[in-house]
Amino acid sequence: MISYTFNDNTKIPIYEQLYIQIKNDILSGKLSANKRLPSKRNFANQLSISVITVENAYNQLLSEGFIYSLPRKGFYVSEIFKESYELADRRKANNTDDSTHTVFYYENSKDASHNDERQYFADFSSNATDPSSFPFSTWAKLTRRILSDDQSFLMKNSPSNGIFLLRDAIASYLQAYRGINVSPDSIIIGAGTETMYNILIQLIGHHRIYACEKPGYKKISEILNANEVENLQIPMDESGVIPSELEKNGVNIIHTTPSHHFPTGITMPVKRRYELLSWATSAEDRYIIEDDYDSEFRLSGRPIPALFSTDTNGKIIYMNTFTKSLASTIRISYMILPPELLNKYYQRLSFYSCTVSTFEQLTLAHFISEGYYEKHINRMRTAYRKKRDYLLSCIKDSGLGNISEINEEQSGLHFILKLKLKIPEEKFLKNLEENDIHIVSTAPQSYMINYSSIPLNKISEAINRINAATNK
Amino acid sequence: MISYTFNDNTKIPIYEQLYIQIKNDILSGKLSANKRLPSKRNFANQLSISVITVENAYNQLLSEGFIYSLPRKGFYVSEIFKESYELADRRKANNTDDSTHTVFYYENSKDASHNDERQYFADFSSNATDPSSFPFSTWAKLTRRILSDDQSFLMKNSPSNGIFLLRDAIASYLQAYRGINVSPDSIIIGAGTETMYNILIQLIGHHRIYACEKPGYKKISEILNANEVENLQIPMDESGVIPSELEKNGVNIIHTTPSHHFPTGITMPVKRRYELLSWATSAEDRYIIEDDYDSEFRLSGRPIPALFSTDTNGKIIYMNTFTKSLASTIRISYMILPPELLNKYYQRLSFYSCTVSTFEQLTLAHFISEGYYEKHINRMRTAYRKKRDYLLSCIKDSGLGNISEINEEQSGLHFILKLKLKIPEEKFLKNLEENDIHIVSTAPQSYMINYSSIPLNKISEAINRINAATNK
Repeated sequence: MISYTFNDNTKIPIYEQLYIQIKNDILSGKLSANKRLPSKRNFANQLSISVITVENAYNQLLSEGFIYSLPRKGFYVSEIFKESYELADRRKANNTDDSTHTVFYYENSKDASHNDERQYFADFSSNATDPSSFPFSTWAKLTRRILSDDQSFLMKNSPSNGIFLLRDAIASYLQAYRGINVSPDSIIIGAGTETMYNILIQLIGHHRIYACEKPGYKKISEILNANEVENLQIPMDESGVIPSELEKNGVNIIHTTPSHHFPTGITMPVKRRYELLSWATSAEDRYIIEDDYDSEFRLSGRPIPALFSTDTNGKIIYMNTFTKSLASTIRISYMILPPELLNKYYQRLSFYSCTVSTFEQLTLAHFISEGYYEKHINRMRTAYRKKRDYLLSCIKDSGLGNISEINEEQSGLHFILKLKLKIPEEKFLKNLEENDIHIVSTAPQSYMINYSSIPLNKISEAINRINAATNK
Repeated sequence: MISYTFNDNTKIPIYEQLYIQIKNDILSGKLSANKRLPSKRNFANQLSISVITVENAYNQLLSEGFIYSLPRKGFYVSEIFKESYELADRRKANNTDDSTHTVFYYENSKDASHNDERQYFADFSSNATDPSSFPFSTWAKLTRRILSDDQSFLMKNSPSNGIFLLRDAIASYLQAYRGINVSPDSIIIGAGTETMYNILIQLIGHHRIYACEKPGYKKISEILNANEVENLQIPMDESGVIPSELEKNGVNIIHTTPSHHFPTGITMPVKRRYELLSWATSAEDRYIIEDDYDSEFRLSGRPIPALFSTDTNGKIIYMNTFTKSLASTIRISYMILPPELLNKYYQRLSFYSCTVSTFEQLTLAHFISEGYYEKHINRMRTAYRKKRDYLLSCIKDSGLGNISEINEEQSGLHFILKLKLKIPEEKFLKNLEENDIHIVSTAPQSYMINYSSIPLNKISEAINRINAATNK
């Protein structure tokens, strides 16, 4: 029988305290693999807390992969690959694939950030920001103040990795909201993730084998190809990218989106995370690029911990961007380098000027450190949740309700809509185009619904048009 | 006997009309090589214009290399390599060096844009902008207006090569002030010249031989090395980079600063320009990168025409930057691609997001198109001219007057101070450090005097300190 205690004199909600205690017991081995957890109702009675609190804790553990559920049986502790580090070399030597993966074979369909001239009634492929959500008045206020008060600072060249004030603000934010503890000196600021990637290739070297997830961000392969570096696309199963495939193909660097895979929406479970870390740790020149592009927008439960925070071997390059959380037109991203790469960066690449203007670096630094960023994220999250809920209810209430299934709607700003179409898919897509709706498919009869740029007042009509397109 | 006519009903000054007519006659062959031009006084009488007008025209022709002067003899037409294009292939086959070059052997001394922590009383190596010169109030006014009026535009992703408004403003500016006629579509905007260079390497390819001038911008070699592309440093003579050396070393792409060589200050004469173009034209994969970094700040006469405007074969990649003319902390540069590379760019690299934020692109677009940029440049030019004149008079009036010679003070924001030192150079440099002055040498007893960042009120004292350092 498991027993936990709760502290009422803290800001940490009860569900989160429960989640942490169960998680620690799983990691320490106190709760062993495949052990059945109490039912929600029993556990709630036993701990004198509400059923909903237990449910929240279980959901968080589920989405991070610490536990799994069997229909009509209950919740069980996952088999977490704790021995990964020790086994890594042996596994490498044997090079056998010990799991039975369901490999996903998506078409690497149309680029999600297409540059078509065509304006759709609703474009569910676009990751642009809703213009109405940008905090223009605050931004204008900060800009005005800075242009008047900080003139001499604004004329000083920024260090190569960005001004200290911004790196410090980001470090504090990451500590408070993402559980990531880093020194501002390990942060590199740059004009968008693509720019960071160009720097990374120069840092790690051209004569390495890079890899992306398949399916994944098309742009990453494009950047690698443009730089003429060898790169592969590594298949995924239901847990994410498959480590044995990395091993088999001699990959050195893998780009991955563990918190919220693009485009499938998969959150990489903890077992796979350890396997991936284990893969990286078993050779010196292996690194994992963790692209945490929309972690701010997990709409339910606690945010998924970054792979970066579980890494103790300096194998993770953490990347994040304000292009998603603030505006895609303000080009500010950052990466956190592990110690070895950081030294190399300072020695070999710090001759580069920082690619972001000091004006916008300073504005953003104040925006974060004065608390505006947090407020903005909270407001955005509420707005997106409202939008998502309305979107889901519109789908349910339309004819789509009976022929659809929705995957991974808890995280990030897109989900996957699976449809059982009665007409050929080609016809459906053609109908959509005629109805002035743009959607991209991630697999046969699976469609990415990216709702960040769709105004609330267009949602109902957009769903009606999608529904109509299934019927012609 | 040469005769020219002038048009009084035009804004073009008489000296410029004279310059253009002489230049055309030289280019057409009407004035043949080594022909002596009339003395300034005779020519002025003959044309019924003032001596100073003839002098201005001759100076412009001199600095562009169309004519040369012999002490106490007069002015002669240069031997311009007009047959270059036709001869290129033959010369390539023979691969002989037909000129007697005085090859410069500068040390590639300390990086001019060093990132030392130390703050000097006066740092003549820094290319930073004088903070007091940035048009803060105009910039703030434009920013405020844009943040209020253009919100929906600001949230739209910029095309890969930058927003049309900025490219159009640059194209108009180039036409009006630089004699360069290009379509806005051939302009690519990016976050600084270094970013442009990273894009160029991806565009032209890694398996080419790149070259820089020796001496030259240290950063260009650093970027090439960081990208692991083969690169050489090509020696210069008194006319600039030596084409036969490019030929001999199998160079494909040369980075050059023909308007104002960094750091020697040399303006490439027209003969060498044709030779260089001829070199580029004689093989398909050859390109010249023309870095026109401080052409706005030629302080006397008309600006030197860009190499780009004399190229009819699509061999020049023109680069310029606002980091020099506006502020080094606003990272906006641009390049103009010749048609073949432009097509390749649109096909293969336009998947990249533009690296400059839409906010700053739009602010700069208005800053240029509403005439503020022109005013700013004029004001800067006047301020720099004043600063330079004062600096030169301080040098003359100090003990330095008798032991110094000044080179290339007409162009750009730096010149070369040559000193006949009576103490060992090492001692002199040590004394300077002790006197809190930072200067870098470009050759033995030759020092780069970059005055852009030195406030006017520090100049007199700074020169006194330099003078004192020669005497200890």
